[in-house]
Amino acid sequence: MKWSVKFMMNFRTDLALERRDLYRKANNIANEINGLETQEETIGENVKVTRVKVLNEEGEQAIGKKKGSYITIDIKDLKIAGEDEIQKASEAVTKELKALIGNLVADQDDILVVGLGNLYVTPDALGPKVIQDIDITRHLLTYMPEVLEQGTRPVSAVSPGVLGTTGIETVEILKGIVDNIHPKLIIVIDALASRSIERISSTVQIADTGIVPGAGVGNTRKELTIDTLGIPVIAIGVPTVVEAATIAADSLELFINKVQEEGHSNEFLNQLKEEDKYQMIKEILAPEDYNFIVTPKEIDELIENMSSVVARGINFATQK
Amino acid sequence: MKWSVKFMMNFRTDLALERRDLYRKANNIANEINGLETQEETIGENVKVTRVKVLNEEGEQAIGKKKGSYITIDIKDLKIAGEDEIQKASEAVTKELKALIGNLVADQDDILVVGLGNLYVTPDALGPKVIQDIDITRHLLTYMPEVLEQGTRPVSAVSPGVLGTTGIETVEILKGIVDNIHPKLIIVIDALASRSIERISSTVQIADTGIVPGAGVGNTRKELTIDTLGIPVIAIGVPTVVEAATIAADSLELFINKVQEEGHSNEFLNQLKEEDKYQMIKEILAPEDYNFIVTPKEIDELIENMSSVVARGINFATQK
Amino acid sequence: MKWSVKFMMNFRTDLALERRDLYRKANNIANEINGLETQEETIGENVKVTRVKVLNEEGEQAIGKKKGSYITIDIKDLKIAGEDEIQKASEAVTKELKALIGNLVADQDDILVVGLGNLYVTPDALGPKVIQDIDITRHLLTYMPEVLEQGTRPVSAVSPGVLGTTGIETVEILKGIVDNIHPKLIIVIDALASRSIERISSTVQIADTGIVPGAGVGNTRKELTIDTLGIPVIAIGVPTVVEAATIAADSLELFINKVQEEGHSNEFLNQLKEEDKYQMIKEILAPEDYNFIVTPKEIDELIENMSSVVARGINFATQK
Amino acid sequence: MKWSVKFMMNFRTDLALERRDLYRKANNIANEINGLETQEETIGENVKVTRVKVLNEEGEQAIGKKKGSYITIDIKDLKIAGEDEIQKASEAVTKELKALIGNLVADQDDILVVGLGNLYVTPDALGPKVIQDIDITRHLLTYMPEVLEQGTRPVSAVSPGVLGTTGIETVEILKGIVDNIHPKLIIVIDALASRSIERISSTVQIADTGIVPGAGVGNTRKELTIDTLGIPVIAIGVPTVVEAATIAADSLELFINKVQEEGHSNEFLNQLKEEDKYQMIKEILAPEDYNFIVTPKEIDELIENMSSVVARGINFATQK
Repeated sequence: MKWSVKFMMNFRTDLALERRDLYRKANNIANEINGLETQEETIGENVKVTRVKVLNEEGEQAIGKKKGSYITIDIKDLKIAGEDEIQKASEAVTKELKALIGNLVADQDDILVVGLGNLYVTPDALGPKVIQDIDITRHLLTYMPEVLEQGTRPVSAVSPGVLGTTGIETVEILKGIVDNIHPKLIIVIDALASRSIERISSTVQIADTGIVPGAGVGNTRKELTIDTLGIPVIAIGVPTVVEAATIAADSLELFINKVQEEGHSNEFLNQLKEEDKYQMIKEILAPEDYNFIVTPKEIDELIENMSSVVARGINFATQK
Repeated sequence: MKWSVKFMMNFRTDLALERRDLYRKANNIANEINGLETQEETIGENVKVTRVKVLNEEGEQAIGKKKGSYITIDIKDLKIAGEDEIQKASEAVTKELKALIGNLVADQDDILVVGLGNLYVTPDALGPKVIQDIDITRHLLTYMPEVLEQGTRPVSAVSPGVLGTTGIETVEILKGIVDNIHPKLIIVIDALASRSIERISSTVQIADTGIVPGAGVGNTRKELTIDTLGIPVIAIGVPTVVEAATIAADSLELFINKVQEEGHSNEFLNQLKEEDKYQMIKEILAPEDYNFIVTPKEIDELIENMSSVVARGINFATQK
Repeated sequence: MKWSVKFMMNFRTDLALERRDLYRKANNIANEINGLETQEETIGENVKVTRVKVLNEEGEQAIGKKKGSYITIDIKDLKIAGEDEIQKASEAVTKELKALIGNLVADQDDILVVGLGNLYVTPDALGPKVIQDIDITRHLLTYMPEVLEQGTRPVSAVSPGVLGTTGIETVEILKGIVDNIHPKLIIVIDALASRSIERISSTVQIADTGIVPGAGVGNTRKELTIDTLGIPVIAIGVPTVVEAATIAADSLELFINKVQEEGHSNEFLNQLKEEDKYQMIKEILAPEDYNFIVTPKEIDELIENMSSVVARGINFATQK
Repeated sequence: MKWSVKFMMNFRTDLALERRDLYRKANNIANEINGLETQEETIGENVKVTRVKVLNEEGEQAIGKKKGSYITIDIKDLKIAGEDEIQKASEAVTKELKALIGNLVADQDDILVVGLGNLYVTPDALGPKVIQDIDITRHLLTYMPEVLEQGTRPVSAVSPGVLGTTGIETVEILKGIVDNIHPKLIIVIDALASRSIERISSTVQIADTGIVPGAGVGNTRKELTIDTLGIPVIAIGVPTVVEAATIAADSLELFINKVQEEGHSNEFLNQLKEEDKYQMIKEILAPEDYNFIVTPKEIDELIENMSSVVARGINFATQK
């Protein structure tokens, strides 16, 4: 079947919103894709929230994402953000996250926050960095409840490391912890791949469907979902890398469009537009050996700012 | 009972060797303590190995350590160590560790290495730093066995974090992982308290009895032993902190000794020697509010050198 | 002469305030020392400001500090400080610093901020860490003045490193920079030694007399003063280390006091009080080889909080 | 004039070797460019050394590099290098560097090593990281000459920071230090831009002409050369970033070549090849706002490995 093949090969992004846009473009769909429902909201000048709902199997097939909610928060100019912008962006995260949590568990149900990734690989360090700033209450409720307000929710947090440095699948570590401490909900933070360098560390995707770590960049691991962990999993993903071949393919598309606009249009170029440029670029680049995954030069600061946004967003969403 | 009280209040060290020395001194025991067995070995000019065996309950009562082997490796001048000294010290660790492992599990049995501590608190960062340098094979044996030699032992490694930043007892996290990945042996690395600033990051204690994290500095946690985890636990501990009150008490003892040697001896000073100077110092210091735990100024480099020693020691002990 | 000898050997602290207290105690001076002038102020519940002025040579002889102003800001519980306490403490720094700057240079005169110390030695990392957070304007005034408000003062900042890692005296590096960029004032940030573990990273000393790096801990370097650099030097010092022998000596003093209060007083103990206990302790400890310089276990976090206090204090003091 | 314009706009690389290749291709030059002289050497399986000499003004005009030697050491698979590869690569650096040093100064002449860049921006951290591992002798020769071998050369090292964090031009800082400590030669380490992601942290360029920091990525600063500093400057540069637009333009070129090979050739595509694709891509990309500078995801480890290579290379080249 045509599209299931395309989806396996093509999206090169973990963002449901980007997949939706790619699918609509590729199939010349002017309105909504069958099986999806999308809603947009603009907050102030710098924040845009897009809520994509995958309603059924048809929607799943189209964009290769499980049935559920995928909320994208795009934050303009977070890269040069001051304290105010970080605060506003984190409030947007809090609002969306709080709504999803409220749908899944009760007010004082135990939540485990999980920071995926490798602290020593800058574009992969977001998860562990967020964990450092999460307000942990579970142990205080046990040992010194008097220091907490009445009704505080138990929150705990771990950075399980990555397969390459632990030798253990993340799902194995988390399953063990879940079985021992019995949280009611997991919030997982992960770094994602995107199509767009612009979105690097400027976008947050919140999904109530869990995640498959590393899905966006080709190294599939066992998924972290209600199916594998037995409790609901909310995934907070932030794009931090882009494939070099994606940059090449996207710029090639822009280039062909420009050429055609300028009247150089001809049969051959039209035909090119029909083809899978990403695949062609991949093949062309392969012998040159630069199928690299890249990240902006400023990634250290981007990760720093974004981990403040996400940590605050979680802290206010998990407590009253 | 006099001594069980003394042991609860007095040792201020996690090292079995220091406890033995303190107990012998306090009780004027010239030879070995009943219930202990001690053996010393000197390797080259800079390494001294002392093996203290706690044989029975009498030994346990005396030094407050479980029945089992406690091997102390003192490395002279590790602080200013070059590559050669680090290599020699790590070989001493390998030799002792290999013997203990051989007593507990078979050659290809799965081992989980656990780095306790907090990466962001320098004197507590040894465990997580060692984990970074452990040669992990468990995932390779699953996914790419062809890159490994025949007979490679599966080794995995985690840094579970500390209660204060996770909200979860270490034993809860480890129990979960053990139940899911079924290793046959755990090696735990932890930072310890010692009586002696000289020993900071110059001494390694290897014990086949597991550990109680934080035992040395007053914040007891649930123990990590075969009783709580269901498999044998080897503990590798390195002193990284000393209590300020210990420095004060020890120097006071030295002072009184000096005074008496010089003939100023008198009834009052003799009486002082009988008393629990540590407790008195603690009481005197309390209103001044400096019951601090301290570490040498050079702790960053000490931790760096020692984590190389321990990681290499483990890597060579776990593989042929 | 008795006291000049004592001062060379005894103070073991870089804080003028502590030296004054030690001198008064040693000499049983109930009121002010000749040649000094002291003023105290309490701000809110947690901040105490003490301004010691060394008026003349007699004052210089007494406490071994150059003629000038030494302002000590003690901040209670900075160790567990939240955002509010850090803000209040930084405001106290700003106020005192602004007054000193106003005495020395005009409103728009060029200032160079210098962070002494070694980023890789935690208790010595304060200077380099503060530099990261200084608001730099000098290059913007040259290249993009339009982004700055009218009347912005040119501020630049360097971390010159330490002799052990550069091979160059700090004064040589700074002299070169001063000769090339011609600032009108230097503000130097440095880590100090104190008598008191309590003061570690809880106290800021601001002096208009410059500094001799490492003076407090025995490794004297060439001084950084108007005499060596040709322009006024304000020194901001924060205690981050204590000598182990100081802990021992001070606790011994407390001990002897306690013993005497309890009526055990006798000729010998009285005589001890007259003597130089620090020196005796040093001698006793020497063969044991633990003349260590120590720092609290929590030094990473202490340095983090204090570098926020100092950086903000400087930023608001250097700009309107 | 055509070529001077092209060189200003086009090379997008700091490597003389890449500029030479681009120039030859653009001008269909089969042999050597007038004014250049090139020599290649292969060492073992993994190291290739190319020595480009710019002989005169004609060569300067062609590749926009000053008269002098530009030695490129390409190291295959440094990314996954073990201890052996790092050692071999550093030996290649030592050999080339030693020859250049020998041409410029005498055996015991004082050398100052300068690590340019920003420690907190991973792809820009190479310089400061190398400095940490340089064997410094200048202060020992002054204070403890007895610990050094006879004939040790005085070596010192600084990391002056970057304009954005100091507010001071690097040349102003270095001029000051040179005037005060009078070294006879400066070795500067800097991160470069390259055309090729493959070369990121796999290539070292050594030049005896000094450098203009940031030249490759558009933010020109005052040059560091014998003209500005008064003593010879050897520059060691390592590519760590690539412009996203370069990836796009290079892949577009590959794409057009492929299309033509496949017989789709036509007038329009031929014409495209003549044009400045980089400029066109830049213009197309501009409205999309992704004129980013990127670096591989693995940059942390690449920098770590390469800084070992360079530091060892320098240490063995500066001492006998």
